[in-house]
Amino acid sequence: MWRPALAGPPAVVLLSGGLDSYTAAAVAKRDGFSLSALSINYGQRHVRELEASRDVAAALGVDRHLELALDLSQIGGSSLTSLAIDVPKDSTFAKATADKHPGVIPNTYVPARNTIFLSMALGWAEVLGAADIVIGVNALDYSGYPDCRPEFIQAFERLARLATRAGVEGRPLTVHTPLISLSKAGIIRLGLSLGLDYGLTHSCYDPPPSGRPCGHCDSCQLRAAGFAEAGATDPLIGSAG
Amino acid sequence: MWRPALAGPPAVVLLSGGLDSYTAAAVAKRDGFSLSALSINYGQRHVRELEASRDVAAALGVDRHLELALDLSQIGGSSLTSLAIDVPKDSTFAKATADKHPGVIPNTYVPARNTIFLSMALGWAEVLGAADIVIGVNALDYSGYPDCRPEFIQAFERLARLATRAGVEGRPLTVHTPLISLSKAGIIRLGLSLGLDYGLTHSCYDPPPSGRPCGHCDSCQLRAAGFAEAGATDPLIGSAG
Repeated sequence: MWRPALAGPPAVVLLSGGLDSYTAAAVAKRDGFSLSALSINYGQRHVRELEASRDVAAALGVDRHLELALDLSQIGGSSLTSLAIDVPKDSTFAKATADKHPGVIPNTYVPARNTIFLSMALGWAEVLGAADIVIGVNALDYSGYPDCRPEFIQAFERLARLATRAGVEGRPLTVHTPLISLSKAGIIRLGLSLGLDYGLTHSCYDPPPSGRPCGHCDSCQLRAAGFAEAGATDPLIGSAG
Repeated sequence: MWRPALAGPPAVVLLSGGLDSYTAAAVAKRDGFSLSALSINYGQRHVRELEASRDVAAALGVDRHLELALDLSQIGGSSLTSLAIDVPKDSTFAKATADKHPGVIPNTYVPARNTIFLSMALGWAEVLGAADIVIGVNALDYSGYPDCRPEFIQAFERLARLATRAGVEGRPLTVHTPLISLSKAGIIRLGLSLGLDYGLTHSCYDPPPSGRPCGHCDSCQLRAAGFAEAGATDPLIGSAG
């Protein structure tokens, strides 16, 4: 009797260890992709995120998990990669700032980060024979980062068609952004409906030595507001959240 | 008395230690840019190239030279980054192959390499406040690499406008490709007219333990044919070349 193959087509998923990329990967898995997870140690001060990516990858049952190191702290220019720049705290939070001051990009923006990460994913996808990349960018409850917008993603797809052997040979690349138009609460609701354990994730930009979320950076505040709006409890915080 | 500023506008130049990137950087210097050189240790088997990049950077008088490490051998898929794939030798050489079999890309192609390198240059350019990147790609005497073509470069410029804070704020990026339509002989003539010492460079894809050029890989053969056509002697080879 004919049986369908158990493994779906391969997709490279950028997995940071945060809530968004975990959810995006889970959507891709639900949609039938078999996952190759790529995590980047880029010299971020929240390197705890990378440990979370291993737990998340295991929970997702990925085919493989590749960690690449690229020390963007040598480039600097962001509070996430340079200890000389403070991570903003209690900034009446990022979304409100972005709404009120469009074009004002906070110092947590890492120059060209998503371009660099998607390029690395593109190289690995080509070697794996994968025509699909998944990234958990979000253009709504985001922090005003230019490289989280749909027009950026479309431009990357166009570039990819010209950049690679696969593109030349007529196998175009698709970049999947299942979260791009969701609110943070919407992302959390979606993930909970898929049975995700957000206790595995790490979101804080600037964790204290305890490793617990600081509760005051934009990322912590976006996360807390998202759980509150979704009417859910953040397992990282417990009932206090 | 008014005097012009001594330093021109900053440009990030990708400097491999090879002949092409040295020449491209020298053209940018001639045109008034002050140079910030970026070299990538990507796990290439011809890592000798990186040592050459230091000599070349010193000869060019760059403002700064940044070396970033990104181990693409973890991705593999190319004879330049995977010891499991042999570098082709005496292959009636790359240009002839590319001319006769358009679309046939040799195994020295490194998946998405120029996309990755330009992305890293983009991040550094943004931090430095540079609106210009210089890359020594060449679409004529090349080896059939998709990411050396003008349409790829134009797509990257479009992407860069959407990817960065600088782009959002209306400061577009220009990627300069001064060699893109030159033959290898034309590149060598240009460089010699600028007084370059090609004895500082390294081109061989697969140097033996001596570090001397193998003479048989595509890169050695393109270089030898270029010097011959230019009627010049390769200082790396001497009168035997």
